[in-house]
This record gives sequence, structure tokens and C-alpha cells, in this order.
Amino acid sequence: MPHPIAALHPDRLFPAEPVTRAVARRLYENVRELPIISPHGHTDPRWFAENAPFSDPSSLLITPDHYVFRMLYSQGVRLEDLGIASRNPASTPPPDPRAVWRLFARHYGLFRGTPTRLWLDWVLGEVFGVEAPLEEASADRAFDRICERLAEPGFRPRALFERFNIEVLATTESPLDDLRHHAAIRASGWPGRIITTYRPDDVVDPEAPGFLHHLARFAELTGEDVFSWNGYLAAHRKRRAHFARFGATSTDHGHPSAHTANLGPREAEALFQRVLSEARGRTVEPVLAETFRGQMLTEMARLSLDDGLVLQIHPGSWRNHNALLHVRFGTNVGADIPRATDFVGALRPLLNRFGNEPKLAIIVFTLDESSYSRELAPLAGHYPALKLGPAWWFHDSPEGLRRFREQTTETAGFYNTVGFNDDTRAFLSIPARHDVARRVDCAFLARLVAEHRLPEDEALQVACDLAYHLPKTAYRL
Amino acid sequence: MPHPIAALHPDRLFPAEPVTRAVARRLYENVRELPIISPHGHTDPRWFAENAPFSDPSSLLITPDHYVFRMLYSQGVRLEDLGIASRNPASTPPPDPRAVWRLFARHYGLFRGTPTRLWLDWVLGEVFGVEAPLEEASADRAFDRICERLAEPGFRPRALFERFNIEVLATTESPLDDLRHHAAIRASGWPGRIITTYRPDDVVDPEAPGFLHHLARFAELTGEDVFSWNGYLAAHRKRRAHFARFGATSTDHGHPSAHTANLGPREAEALFQRVLSEARGRTVEPVLAETFRGQMLTEMARLSLDDGLVLQIHPGSWRNHNALLHVRFGTNVGADIPRATDFVGALRPLLNRFGNEPKLAIIVFTLDESSYSRELAPLAGHYPALKLGPAWWFHDSPEGLRRFREQTTETAGFYNTVGFNDDTRAFLSIPARHDVARRVDCAFLARLVAEHRLPEDEALQVACDLAYHLPKTAYRL
Amino acid sequence: MPHPIAALHPDRLFPAEPVTRAVARRLYENVRELPIISPHGHTDPRWFAENAPFSDPSSLLITPDHYVFRMLYSQGVRLEDLGIASRNPASTPPPDPRAVWRLFARHYGLFRGTPTRLWLDWVLGEVFGVEAPLEEASADRAFDRICERLAEPGFRPRALFERFNIEVLATTESPLDDLRHHAAIRASGWPGRIITTYRPDDVVDPEAPGFLHHLARFAELTGEDVFSWNGYLAAHRKRRAHFARFGATSTDHGHPSAHTANLGPREAEALFQRVLSEARGRTVEPVLAETFRGQMLTEMARLSLDDGLVLQIHPGSWRNHNALLHVRFGTNVGADIPRATDFVGALRPLLNRFGNEPKLAIIVFTLDESSYSRELAPLAGHYPALKLGPAWWFHDSPEGLRRFREQTTETAGFYNTVGFNDDTRAFLSIPARHDVARRVDCAFLARLVAEHRLPEDEALQVACDLAYHLPKTAYRL
Repeated sequence: MPHPIAALHPDRLFPAEPVTRAVARRLYENVRELPIISPHGHTDPRWFAENAPFSDPSSLLITPDHYVFRMLYSQGVRLEDLGIASRNPASTPPPDPRAVWRLFARHYGLFRGTPTRLWLDWVLGEVFGVEAPLEEASADRAFDRICERLAEPGFRPRALFERFNIEVLATTESPLDDLRHHAAIRASGWPGRIITTYRPDDVVDPEAPGFLHHLARFAELTGEDVFSWNGYLAAHRKRRAHFARFGATSTDHGHPSAHTANLGPREAEALFQRVLSEARGRTVEPVLAETFRGQMLTEMARLSLDDGLVLQIHPGSWRNHNALLHVRFGTNVGADIPRATDFVGALRPLLNRFGNEPKLAIIVFTLDESSYSRELAPLAGHYPALKLGPAWWFHDSPEGLRRFREQTTETAGFYNTVGFNDDTRAFLSIPARHDVARRVDCAFLARLVAEHRLPEDEALQVACDLAYHLPKTAYRL
Repeated sequence: MPHPIAALHPDRLFPAEPVTRAVARRLYENVRELPIISPHGHTDPRWFAENAPFSDPSSLLITPDHYVFRMLYSQGVRLEDLGIASRNPASTPPPDPRAVWRLFARHYGLFRGTPTRLWLDWVLGEVFGVEAPLEEASADRAFDRICERLAEPGFRPRALFERFNIEVLATTESPLDDLRHHAAIRASGWPGRIITTYRPDDVVDPEAPGFLHHLARFAELTGEDVFSWNGYLAAHRKRRAHFARFGATSTDHGHPSAHTANLGPREAEALFQRVLSEARGRTVEPVLAETFRGQMLTEMARLSLDDGLVLQIHPGSWRNHNALLHVRFGTNVGADIPRATDFVGALRPLLNRFGNEPKLAIIVFTLDESSYSRELAPLAGHYPALKLGPAWWFHDSPEGLRRFREQTTETAGFYNTVGFNDDTRAFLSIPARHDVARRVDCAFLARLVAEHRLPEDEALQVACDLAYHLPKTAYRL
Repeated sequence: MPHPIAALHPDRLFPAEPVTRAVARRLYENVRELPIISPHGHTDPRWFAENAPFSDPSSLLITPDHYVFRMLYSQGVRLEDLGIASRNPASTPPPDPRAVWRLFARHYGLFRGTPTRLWLDWVLGEVFGVEAPLEEASADRAFDRICERLAEPGFRPRALFERFNIEVLATTESPLDDLRHHAAIRASGWPGRIITTYRPDDVVDPEAPGFLHHLARFAELTGEDVFSWNGYLAAHRKRRAHFARFGATSTDHGHPSAHTANLGPREAEALFQRVLSEARGRTVEPVLAETFRGQMLTEMARLSLDDGLVLQIHPGSWRNHNALLHVRFGTNVGADIPRATDFVGALRPLLNRFGNEPKLAIIVFTLDESSYSRELAPLAGHYPALKLGPAWWFHDSPEGLRRFREQTTETAGFYNTVGFNDDTRAFLSIPARHDVARRVDCAFLARLVAEHRLPEDEALQVACDLAYHLPKTAYRL
């Protein structure tokens, strides 16, 4: 008997074959209520600091979610009509949220077969109790229902955080962020564990717009002479310590490639001065910028050995591929596209310097699935410092998560991976995302059990480790 | 109870698991009799113009099908013995068709597990009523049976076209083709819808043998000064309009890579003159040829915005990889080999110029499956002008079609894809190819339904869209 | 009812779906007792020459198996503690084998989901009759049990060879090896068929440490002036003939890439002299070394046409990626990492020279699974001389073997592949490895049967061919 909303069926994402499904159910029963560990993501700490009601369904579920609006854009819907703010605010008034919602509902069929559909169905049905599948005819009813709910106290950010059974939630901030929202959360006495993450791209990437201005602000915040190499490193050290005081247990680095470098101190200093000098002349030669970013990964690893922060690397996205949209709407508008990414040559300088340190934790992610079995599983199955981040971004989907396990487990095992990251701005979808990951992992394990490749008691232990213990350990939470 | 010919079993290609199979059957019941839309392929329009009987089984099923003879060649069978015409016709007399057929039947086991086997079994069993599986012992009986049938009126090209329930069939012609067969079809009053496609490689690719001669002929046909940049573009415009009068709704471009360029008019003109100048000196520098082909894709997109023709790009095949065979037998002898293909950097100039145009339709194909989830689905899930062509060439097989859906759907959805292309010269296999694609799509959708990822009513709508409505819409038929 | 040791369940690795499983069982029943053909591997011929008892469980099962110790190393276990010999023997005394075993047993859970787990469970349970799953608590009991068994005559190398039903086992030796163990085996009158393989990397790779010393030794062994091009080739010819007298039917080449070259004799000679000259100056320019290795593959093919040896190419591993470990422990310590590997351009010089020779057999392997469907299946499905080696190294696992069939069969068929290689030093796991491969092939074929893509009688013939006849034929055994 199908559930009226497929995404809420209790057996969703389990294989249809009855023996395997029964194993998957048993495994899942033991992990489904484990608290959510969300060690890497992009929610807004202001929500939890201010705990104000979310305003309306569209600005909650559509406008901030590039998975959603990129699909609509790909089918000819204008971003302006979805309420995406243009950089030229004078252009047109923002559309009415109800109009945006109707437009979205009319195109809901585009999401068939996508994880967005699974997540949204869960949010609509399970969080808001919207009954019918979303379509043009039911758009207004759903909109009104959600609006009513959002006005209730139980739908404020902190209440949802508690209802979602989140044990810890990491946000991501620039070193230039004053962490005021994190401070406010702590000052409020609310016990929800919201922690920050040190993401220094805008003071590390010489190609970031405003790089020199960022450095100036970096100097102000730290009192260091960041235009000297030692002062620059000292500023990082201080700021990392500051972030750690707001709960950070990790840093994060979003570079175009996985390139690393391992220069001696004098060469590194000379590189830094050359980068500054070119930056003052407005453009930094790409190969120089690449080398500097790569050197900084190695420097960050060195600092991590001291302060214990986990080092995350998210490489391989060609950001802002669509030049026109970049000019008109800025960043994060669904136009970041993955590229083929080398890890074996690229990570070697870093790994040769620090890869044998069992106390260091480097977590590497990829958007290039061809590297799972070819490069990343062999690397993570060897280097003590290296772990594999979960299927990322376009790949944190049922098929993507399954491919990750199928292509990494045989070489790296389960214990060189770190559980799931939701990595999302879409707060309301967090439980659905973790639930999808847990179900897919249980389905994978159930296949191993049904094919007599792993005893069920061990599979159960692995399921619990993947859902809860591995992320806690790997991220030192 | 297995059907004596596996490929004709009513449940073929459906998953064995009973619940999923039952869903697949129900979905398939609704699509199996939908008319065939064949928007891209390589059948010979002469067949339908002249409507003469096909001569014999070997020249119908073996000689023109490089899937077939490449496999036999790989196992040491000589191309001469299969009736493949050498460029040196004086060499040896062509073999007897019956001898070719016997050789083929003796090696039929080589095709186990290949789509060729599925297609051929269908053609033998369903079109010709050949009963036993083909093997050496039954070769003569099958040969005779097919010969008898080919002599019957119901086995002439137009009768088969009607029996196959083909609503529209596109062939592919060079701008230098006089389209006489298309003209004859129209003049004949026969209502079968056979349309052409504008494939200008031989007047666009400076590395094509005879490039300058082709341009001279291009000038004759159009009355334009094709050795000037504006005249050259005007000739394309005229010829495209001429093709459109013979039903063309698309153009097609088979380039070594997906490289595109977006030069200004003066630069483009200078490039064209430099290409001509080097071509007159016999060899065009490869990087220049690459840039010119890339620029022409952007020019074609510009023309498409005016005349509405859909732009197809088929990149990434290393044509004529086997130099010896190329010298002895020419092109299309099974020696075209795919290479790793970049799309993210390669298509950027074109997409940055025209990718945001919702009225433009660019359909891109790949032979590099690693690009499905990494590059093409993310691109097609963003750019309004871009759609993904179906699994192509070596990959239009059960496993290949399944991988296409598994690796593109979650990011691009179903509606940024365009249904199936048979892309074949093997006319008799067209229904079998579409049937395989429909079955594989139904199997994929059935899995989504059985795993509660999509309600069955929506899956049914998707199945019909993939089989029929999407190709009609995408190719503007 | 699960078997207490999952890996010994009679249905292990078969799909759970009952119809498919039943087909898989029937196919497997017909192949499971076929003799093992092991045409490529790295066992030590001394074992069979001396037939001495193996000393203890750790030096038998852990120390020589980099699959095992790399996983433990990746989780922070020190290689010294696993009994891996350091290059500085004075450093610390080797650990007690029992201590190594306990350390291994404590970490046995790391292997969940890996093929190592399947192989080891089989060795423990089936070869040694160790009953409980291995864990810390049972470590000592298992250690003692295995020690007892190793002292019995039935557990000596030759007895195990016979018990394992191995028809032929190939080892791999350098041209500089005196083959004394092979000679001793033959002199002993023992009928076990152990053959050698000609692996000339250390006299072919100018970047191999000690290259010039190897050449000097090569000269001594052959009496040829190996510092002249013709003498060097003559030395290969002589040494290949010598190896053939000890049963060799193949050569093997482990190069960083699949690069080949096809220079004329005078150019090749000049290249050789330049390589020697640079080698005398201590370092050979990388591109020169690459060209020379590539030229030597073509030379080896030329020699193979004369002496009939099969040419194996194992490209694409970045050997000794971990510089620190390389210095401290030498080669083969689990730090060889695959890279993206091009075959289409790389093999073209060789294939254009000799690819059309039906009498030549080139077997090519890959660590880059993205090349299966994109490059290798299309190449092997065309060139008469080329065959695909089985899933290799990190990929000779259930998922890896399955992907190999799913991604190569539709284009290359089964008959351009060559059955399974165990390619292992871990002698005791050989039956388990072949059994895994046979089961995975039967599971793949069973799916084809259950989905009506292949009749069961033909699937059965394929299963037997893959398990037994293809390796015999392909390796000319």
C-alpha cells in the first residue's frame, strides 16, 4: 500500500527485494533515532541567536536553496521571478512570496527523481503536515498552511533544532566574521550546541575579490602585521583559537583544485610577498595564486597539528561558471560546476609533509566521482592522516551516496570515512538529508548481509558508527 | 518459462524482483505502442525514395553495421571476408553474401551480453520470424528465410517504416548533399515523415579531407562567396533554410572535442582567413582548426536563435584510430574510439554567450560516462539552453542507458534530457533499440517506485514523456 | 540461516533475489570445481622448490600482504609493529609473530566490506578450520590452531597447491633472476606446474634505481653487448627464450603510464644511447625515460610476434607515493596509488604498428575504472591483438569485478577478456580470490539470464569459458 506521499513511506529507499529489505529495516530501526551530528554546513547562526519566526514558505524553502532554483532556471524560469535578489536592487520590486510559491508548485514535477523532491516532500509532509502532493492546484493551500505553522512557537529555529534531535550543528564562517551570533547563542543560555567552522578562503585566496581589504580587516581583528608572513600566520593562529572558543573543531577550504605545495619557510615567505605585490597591482598570476592556496593548505595542516582542528578540503568546483548570472546576481546562484580533479599528484606535497601523522585529520571531499575508487579510496586506505568526506553536493543523493559506498568501501573500508555531512543552508531539510543517508547506508549494508559478505551483527555496528559515532570521532566533537 | 529467443521474452530487461517487475510491466504497457520518434540517425533516405527491396541479409544486417563487424574483426575475422569494401576495389572480388552470413553465424556467440545481440535477435525473430537461435547449423535456413521475406512487398522500406510505427525519422546530410532523395520522397506522395538534419562538418572542419573542395561546392550550391567570412556565414544560413524546407529541425556537429570559442566578429573573420590560408598550404595547425570548429559552434548557435534549428553536439570520438584500416577501408569501420572529454571549460565560451537563452536548444552528447554526473548533469541542470542527449553509441545499451539515468537524473532531472536517439544506420533494428530504451527507462522508474522515491502515477507520466513527448518537444517536431 | 562465518556461506556473493540466485547457483555448480588457472601472480617459487613449512600465521598472512597492512597503517598502526622490515635493520628487533597477530585481530573490524575480509575468512575457516570469527578474544586460539596446522605435512606449499586444485601457477621474475627455484622445482620431479613470467622493468626502465648495474648483470647473463641497441635487443631475445624454457608464456610490464612509441630503428638506437648517456650522468630526463619505456613496449611486441609470448601491460600506478615510507621501508608497502590513465592516445603507436596482428596477444590492465567503458572496451572490441585483463589490484573485489563486467561486456563482449588473474603474493588466498571472481561472474550472468538477455545454456558456456577456458587460451597455456 503506497503512502500518499512516497517520500514518507516507512520503507522508502530500501531495496524492494524482501530479504534485503527486512535486513535494511532492522538496521535502520537501530539508527533512525540516533541524534543528528551535523559537523559541516551552512545554516545561518542568526536564526538561532534571534530565534525569530521564519517569514514565509518561499524565503524559507526556495530563495536560499540553489538546488531548487537552479532546476527551475534550467527550464526557463527567471531568477527574478523566484525572488532571487539581483545586484541591482533598483531594477524591479521583489515578487510576492505567494507568487513565487505558485511558480514553484507549478514546476514541482521537474524534481521527480531528484533528492530535492525527497527532502521537500519530507519537509512539507513531516514538518508542516501538508497533505496532498504539491502541485499548482494545492499551492495556495500549502502556502497558507505553512504560514500558519511558521507563526507557531514550535516552528521557531530553536524549537525545530530540538524537535530535529540535533546534537551538534556546525555553521561556517570567515575569519573576518565577528561571530556575534555565536556569541549571542552562548550568552542566551540556550543549550543547543551550535558551533562555528574556520573557513579562511577570503584571506587565503589571492583571487578572491577584495583580497587586500580582507587582509586589512584580518589585521584589525587580530592586531597582527598580516602583511608579513609571520604576522599572517600568527593572525591565523589567533583567529583559529578564537573560533575554537566558539566551538570550532575544524577548518574548511574551498579551492578550485586539490593542489598543495610544501615550500620551505623562506620560499613560502617570498611567495607570500610576491602574491601581495601582484595583488596590489590588481591581478595575481593564476599559477601563483594556485601555489599560494596550495601552500596554505600545508600551513593549515601545520597549525592543525598544534591546535587540533580538523582540516577539510572541498576542491574541484568551478565557481560562478555563468558569467552573466555572476554579474547580475553574484555568487551561489546554482552556477558552480564540478570539474575533473586530480588528487594523487595534487595532495602529494601535503601528504608527504604531514600524511603520516596519525594525530592529524585531513578530510577530503570530491565532486568527481571517478576519483572515488581510483584515487581517494587508495589514498585514504593508506595515509593515517587522511579520511574521506561523504558524497558531496550534487552527490548527496540516493544514487550518489550508494556509489560512494560501492566505490570506496572495498579499498578504504568504512572506518576511513567520516559519516554524513548535510552541508546545507536549508535548515528544515537537515533531518531528511540525514535520514536519506542513513537509509542508503542501511540499504548498502543490507545488501552485504543478504549476499553473505558481512554478518548482520557487524553490519549493525557499522550502521551505528556511520550514523553517529564516526562523525563525532572524526570531527572531534 | 523462458522464451526460446530470450530477446523476445515479454519481460526482457525488467528487474527480476517481482514487485519491481510488476511496476515496470505496468509502466511499459503504457509506452510500448507509442509511435517511434527518431530525431537523430543515419539511415539512407534513398531506401524510402526508391522503396526497392533490400538485397540480402548480409548487406542489410552486417556490412553497414560497424557494431557487428568490429566485434568480428576484434576476434581475427578479416573485414574483406565480411564484405566490407576496400578502397582498392581491384584487390579481390567481394565475397558471396551467403558466405558472409555463415561466417557471421559461426561467430554469433561473440555477441553474448552485448546490445547487438538483443537487437539482432529481435530483428531475426520479430521482423523475419526466424525461429531458432542463430548458429552455424541454422545459418543457411535463416539466410533463406530472410531472402524470401525480403522479396515480399511487406518488407520494402516504406512498408517496414509503417509496420514499425515510426512517426518521424531524421536522416543526416552534409550541406553539400542535394537532398534529392528527400525531394523524391516528398514528390512521391508517400506520407511517411522522413526529415533531414544539417551536419556541416565537412565545410566546418579545416582538417576534413578535401575541405577547400567542399567549400567550392558550398559556394556553387549557395551562390555565396564562401571564401569571405560573411559569405561563408550567409551560405550556412541559406543552406540551413533549404534543409529546413526538407523538414530539418536540427543541426549536428561531430567534433573531436567539445571545445567552443566566442571571438568577436573581426577576430572570427581573421581566424577564418588564416584557416583558409593554411588550408591552401595543405595543413591547418591543429590548434587553429580546433579554435575554428569551436567558433563555428557559437556561430551555429547564433544562427539557431534566428531559424530555430536545434543544435546537437556529438564530441569526443577519436575517428579512424586505426591508421592501417583507415588507409585500406576508409571511415566508419569500427575504429572510432572515445576519449576523456572536458565539457566545463570547453563549453563555457558558448554557454557564456548563449547559454542563458531559453529559446535556444543545445543538445550535448558524450562518450565519456564519467562526465554524466560530474559535468553534464550539473551544466544541464543550470543553463536554460542546454539539454542532455541520451546515452550515445557504445552506451545505448541496457547497462549504458541505466547508468545514464542513474548518473544524470538526480542533478538534471528527467526534463533536461530529451528521450532516446537510435542514431543508427541499421534501419531494421530501430524498433528494437527504442524498445530497449523504453524498457530500461521503465525499469529505472520502477525501481524509483518500488523504493518509494516516486509515486507510480508520476512515474507513468515520466515514462510517456521520455518515450514520446520529450523528443518531440526537444527536437521541435 | 546464516553461516557462522559469512564468507563460507554457500550462497555468498549471489544476489538475494531468489530467481536470480537460483540461476547463479546453477551456473556456479558447473564452474566451482574447475581447476584454477593462475596465469599472472607474485607467489614465491622458493616455496615450491623447498617445500618447507610456512613458519607462522603472521609472516604467512600479514607481513607479505600489503592489502592487509596498508589498512592497519591507515588507522595509525605502525608498520614496525606489524613486522614490516625497515631498511635500517639495526633499529628495533622484529616483533613477536604472536604480538603481530593480536594487533591484527584487534583491528579485524577495519576490513568489514573489503575483499580482504572475504579472502581471510575463507583462509581461516576453510584452510585452517578456525571456527569463530577473528577478534581480539579469539586471536591466540586462532594463532595456535594455525601454527599446529602449519606443522602438518598437508600444509606445506606443494600439498596446498594440490589441495587448491591449481592446474598452473605463474610467478613473475626479473630477467636478472637465475630462476634457480624454477629449476629446482623441475629437477625435483614434482608435477605441479609452476611457470615463470618475463618482467623486464628493471632493465627497461631508465628511472629504476640501479639501472646501469642491472644492464651490466644483463650482459653477464646473456653474453651480449647490452650497451649497444642490437645487443640489448638480442639479450632480451635470449633471456625471453630462457624464461620460455621455464614455462613462461607471457611477459609483463609495470609502467607509470600506458605510453607507447614506435620509432624507426635508427631513432630507437639513438634514443637508447641518449638514455644510457644520461643514466651515466645519474638522472634521465623524465620524458626521455617515458619515451624509452614506450618504445620498449613496441619492441617487446615485435619480439612476441617471433616467440609467441603474450604481452601484459599493467600501467597507471604511482609507485611509492609516500616518500617517507619509501625511504624507511622500501617498495611494496601499500603506498602505490592509481592515477587517471589515458589509453587511446597512449597505446596508438603500438596499436598502429602491431594492433592488427591476430597472432599477437596484448593484454592490458587498468587501475582507472573510468577507462573501462570509455577507452578499453572500445579498443579491445576493435583491435585483433588487444584483450582486456581482468579487474586489477584494488578492483579485484566483488564490486570491482561486477563493474568490470557491467562496463566492458556490452562493447567488448566476454571473448575479448581473458578470465581472472589473482595477481597475488598471498598464496593461501588464491582459491578464495578465484572463487570470488567465479561467483561474481555467475551473479552477473544470472542477472542477464533473469532479465532475459541471455539464455541460460549460453550463460553456462560463458561461465565455464571465463573460469577456465579463456585464461588457458589467452595465455597460451
